[in-house]
Amino acid sequence: MPKTININKDFFDNLVVLIKNKDQRKLQKSLLNMHHADIAEIITNLSDFESQFLYENLHDEIAALVLKEVEDEKRKTLLSKLSAKEIAVDVIDNLESDDAVDVISDLSEKKKEEVLSHIENEDYANDLSDLLKYEENTAGSMMATELIKVNENWNTLECLKKMRKQAEYVKKVHTIYVVNNNNKLLGTMSLKRLLISNKDTKVRDIVNSDVYYVKTDTSTEEIANLMNKYDLIILPVVNENQELLGRITIDDVIDVVKEEAEKDYQMASGIYEDIENNAGILTITRVRLPWLIIGMIGGVLGAKVIGVFDIQKHFELALFIPLIAAMGGNVGVQSAAIVVQSLANKSIDIKNISEKLTKELGVGLLNGLICGCLVFLFTYILGYNLLLGLTVSLSLIIVIIFAALFGTFIPLTLQKYNVDPAVATGPFITTISDILGLLIYFLIGQTILQ
Amino acid sequence: MPKTININKDFFDNLVVLIKNKDQRKLQKSLLNMHHADIAEIITNLSDFESQFLYENLHDEIAALVLKEVEDEKRKTLLSKLSAKEIAVDVIDNLESDDAVDVISDLSEKKKEEVLSHIENEDYANDLSDLLKYEENTAGSMMATELIKVNENWNTLECLKKMRKQAEYVKKVHTIYVVNNNNKLLGTMSLKRLLISNKDTKVRDIVNSDVYYVKTDTSTEEIANLMNKYDLIILPVVNENQELLGRITIDDVIDVVKEEAEKDYQMASGIYEDIENNAGILTITRVRLPWLIIGMIGGVLGAKVIGVFDIQKHFELALFIPLIAAMGGNVGVQSAAIVVQSLANKSIDIKNISEKLTKELGVGLLNGLICGCLVFLFTYILGYNLLLGLTVSLSLIIVIIFAALFGTFIPLTLQKYNVDPAVATGPFITTISDILGLLIYFLIGQTILQ
Repeated sequence: MPKTININKDFFDNLVVLIKNKDQRKLQKSLLNMHHADIAEIITNLSDFESQFLYENLHDEIAALVLKEVEDEKRKTLLSKLSAKEIAVDVIDNLESDDAVDVISDLSEKKKEEVLSHIENEDYANDLSDLLKYEENTAGSMMATELIKVNENWNTLECLKKMRKQAEYVKKVHTIYVVNNNNKLLGTMSLKRLLISNKDTKVRDIVNSDVYYVKTDTSTEEIANLMNKYDLIILPVVNENQELLGRITIDDVIDVVKEEAEKDYQMASGIYEDIENNAGILTITRVRLPWLIIGMIGGVLGAKVIGVFDIQKHFELALFIPLIAAMGGNVGVQSAAIVVQSLANKSIDIKNISEKLTKELGVGLLNGLICGCLVFLFTYILGYNLLLGLTVSLSLIIVIIFAALFGTFIPLTLQKYNVDPAVATGPFITTISDILGLLIYFLIGQTILQ
Repeated sequence: MPKTININKDFFDNLVVLIKNKDQRKLQKSLLNMHHADIAEIITNLSDFESQFLYENLHDEIAALVLKEVEDEKRKTLLSKLSAKEIAVDVIDNLESDDAVDVISDLSEKKKEEVLSHIENEDYANDLSDLLKYEENTAGSMMATELIKVNENWNTLECLKKMRKQAEYVKKVHTIYVVNNNNKLLGTMSLKRLLISNKDTKVRDIVNSDVYYVKTDTSTEEIANLMNKYDLIILPVVNENQELLGRITIDDVIDVVKEEAEKDYQMASGIYEDIENNAGILTITRVRLPWLIIGMIGGVLGAKVIGVFDIQKHFELALFIPLIAAMGGNVGVQSAAIVVQSLANKSIDIKNISEKLTKELGVGLLNGLICGCLVFLFTYILGYNLLLGLTVSLSLIIVIIFAALFGTFIPLTLQKYNVDPAVATGPFITTISDILGLLIYFLIGQTILQ
């Protein structure tokens, strides 16, 4: 088992003291054999000066891995202290191509070129330069070029020999790809088949051509769905001519899956943008304010709606404003969330929109009736005016049905126009439901209470 | 590339027609070479009778894989038509142990035993029986027993020979484990090392002992965090004596990560429980109603709060009830969501609670001041009474600060008492914020407006 340290406050505080005292010997001893992901987590919580000092006390190989792991802002700070040559030799040469590209792409155009010019292995520099050209969030920008491939014309003995050589340049051997003389991807060869076949069996006779692959311009979201659905651990990437260019591993895709899910969650909670754990007060305020302002505009519009009616005459209507507003929002968000999730899971779109709306209408009707009856009972028990009770429960039923339909319809429509449907579960839908609810409530109230 | 069919409405409708006409020849042709995950998706959208007919037209090997993939309810229906012997021979024998356990665990105790008694390979039946005993959501219940292991005393040539034999029983070779004579896990051997080492090198000399492992009782959540943090693709499982019992692969963990994230999202959207895509109206109503009732009780309490004050005298206060209620809820959910996410990501708990609250106080103050000023401006422009504008903006500032502190404090407290902190981002916190906000608003209103 690798050294796993319980990174608690004591351990952390102790490190900070070592850094303050510039006690390099003890610091290096503390960090020895620690996993780079743990060190990255520590660095995230240090000040810039402290992280810098700690970083300088790491071995190059670990330092490079830590750099790929830390959050963007921190990485930029650490990189800014390194010369192009240091980045090329100490960092890039210790990373696989996909991580190397992540690091380089944070640099200015000028420094990028400088770094590439300092990379000794020219082929590798060219590979990196090619990788840097792919658009963000595509297979090309995510893939690594390190892989093991064998020619269909080799026999298994030749394979083992050649793979031995290739393996020196590859960190982990996940899958063995089979290509023809033109580097066209033909399939994979399982280690198992290699192990149980005779020495003179040709690769082409044991190739598994049932292999999923993606083109360089496939989106990361599509890749995540594909790998998740078909339980793939590694996915080859080809160009237009089906030539094998690289591969994507599942660990990178997990990050995509997590980020997607977190983004939806943040949307639903009214947070505008992903921020880092240690973001400052100004950043936090910036990502939250837009939603709050939407909510506020909604509130002011709500005031206008109420103002249209003669509230002074029926002041008792004011009592249940919070109930009507809250319930409309709650139901709308519930419906929208279910739609957003089924869209995110790419559930086959067999049922069409009208079927979905019909079902949601049923749910709304049932929920509305139950809630309506309950609220009538509540108001009766609490001794409110019967007509007021009737107004509230009737409005509630209608508001719930409307909000359910709205909540289903809006994300479906957004999706159709290529807007992230998760937007619909945020304060956006709550605000619309609020105003709509108030309108219904006062209309019914004025009619019933006269 | 495997046959990938665009499963659109036309393709689906066509299948339904084939099933209705009992056209087995054409149906089988349509399904030929389709991935089991795609077939499972189709089955999910069929009626019970249709799924049954389609299932019977699949080859046993594919049928077994489809069965492991479909949602629980559908699986139970399909299994109910099979005898214990059919399940044992056609299904279980075609699955890896972890999937086999998933299928068996859906059966009644009596049928479980019957199925196990029909499995020919006695060792395998015993393995499955052992696996069934582990508690849900632990490493034991998730692991598969199929793996490749080599003895530290073998040389690489012996390894290849023995692995060849083991590989016949294992579907995919991901990692080669090294054990001693007592089956104690010593580490892994990389395929790369195996390939580049001399034939007479002993395994013990090339074992990589830096291997993460978990005990059978480790929770799935912990496993997901471990695999994600350290980029692990496969994780060995050992018992108390460190004997190697099985392994967990990343594809199972992705499902855990996704489900965790979806659970949080559902919580935040006020959905009480995960439901299947094709759930009926009653099920959908059941999972949504609890939150709605909480919201409704909150609304009734809100009415009580408003009732305490002399609303008739200051009826204009009613206008901004929706604004105050909405903003309190929005801010509370935002703060809570940030805490929930940092707890879910297991960000090191270096900063203590009071630091977090202080930061949140800062954010609340800033957001409050900005929103307060804006709302004062709005009300001024729209020509509302200045004192009313003052009341609304002053209340808003205080409500935002309170909600921010509340939103931070509640999930942290829930976590401390082992309650899922995501609960706090649901209608729960909105409801509390609503009531608190109204109280503050009316208190200030009555004071200022006299």
